[in-house]
Amino acid sequence: VKDNSKGNADFYEVIKSRRSVRYYDPSFEIPREEIIELVKEATLAPSGHNAQGWRFLIVDNQDLKKKLLPITFGQNQVVEASAVIVVLADKNAYSESNIAHIYDKAIEAGYMSEDIKNKMLQGLEHLNSMVTEQFLRDVMVTDCGLVSMQILLAAKARGYDTVPMMGYDAGELRKVFNVPDHLISLLIIPIGKAAKPGHPTIRLNPDEVVFWNSVS
Amino acid sequence: VKDNSKGNADFYEVIKSRRSVRYYDPSFEIPREEIIELVKEATLAPSGHNAQGWRFLIVDNQDLKKKLLPITFGQNQVVEASAVIVVLADKNAYSESNIAHIYDKAIEAGYMSEDIKNKMLQGLEHLNSMVTEQFLRDVMVTDCGLVSMQILLAAKARGYDTVPMMGYDAGELRKVFNVPDHLISLLIIPIGKAAKPGHPTIRLNPDEVVFWNSVS
Repeated sequence: VKDNSKGNADFYEVIKSRRSVRYYDPSFEIPREEIIELVKEATLAPSGHNAQGWRFLIVDNQDLKKKLLPITFGQNQVVEASAVIVVLADKNAYSESNIAHIYDKAIEAGYMSEDIKNKMLQGLEHLNSMVTEQFLRDVMVTDCGLVSMQILLAAKARGYDTVPMMGYDAGELRKVFNVPDHLISLLIIPIGKAAKPGHPTIRLNPDEVVFWNSVS
Repeated sequence: VKDNSKGNADFYEVIKSRRSVRYYDPSFEIPREEIIELVKEATLAPSGHNAQGWRFLIVDNQDLKKKLLPITFGQNQVVEASAVIVVLADKNAYSESNIAHIYDKAIEAGYMSEDIKNKMLQGLEHLNSMVTEQFLRDVMVTDCGLVSMQILLAAKARGYDTVPMMGYDAGELRKVFNVPDHLISLLIIPIGKAAKPGHPTIRLNPDEVVFWNSVS
């Protein structure tokens, strides 16, 4: 996949060539403007109630990337990559203030009426009173998974590589990077110019993961 | 995005044109062979330890699609869509037997040595003894989010539409479709030929979701 921030990467080439890359060119920098474009592309992902409960801690300062090294038990890609995106799920994403803010923007854009907004907020209040904390967490984590996949793909489409990491010291990350309690840290995603290609990996056959019409 | 199972959809067109579609042509059928191809494309997604803790209940029988109607509180897209993919997270994905099966396939493909397999299984045993159930659930749910995004995109690349749904009666789904306790039901994704286009929706600005180097 060649660099084409101008926008013509083949979808199938992107999904087939994306691999987890653990070695990066440490001299390569991605400008913040480009990272912001990538965030815009990734956040085209859908989310429950369009709540967009994803937040991104993006570490591109060299000294701070080094602080990620002990947090990730010495996985050097967090230092060598151009930037490291920590995907955070906001437990408060379904709060009335967060949703009202988003729906007000939708009204401003002409995508929603005041009436629909009020009905949806009432529905949300009802939902919040019915569901468990675990359900809301699963929703936010799922939505963060959706946006994370688009980060990996949008990076590949631009000629960059990534590696999604979930095994790290979340408590230490929280302390060093001032992550408040309402944000759950999920994937840590280094992004940069590959110095070594990723390994191919196998996949289960469809018949090992698909159940037709009933889980036996 | 035009139909091109042959494989040249533009990545940017796919991510920009994907929308949640709630009206489908009920006469349109997607052959199972094509759904299997789509599953193969989607499951190119990465997962922690390559555990691939995603499972898919795919409902394409018309009578059984109707049983999804009360489960989804009457959202008609589950009946009109050609098929409905229920994404399930396997709580046992990090079990030794599941992982050993996958690593044996990797050895067979020449991607892994017996030695690395044994080291990784030891590492996994250590990990399983250290982490909480909530952490493992977050990992599996995140991975299911990753693969779900690729389902949505791979469908769009083939000229189909989708709508990810999380608000439904999970207990009733479990009963009607025999979902065992170790599988957590996440998104329900109808897929088919759109009868009406989806609405545009707004997104938060990058500066509302990005924190540079520290969450203030």
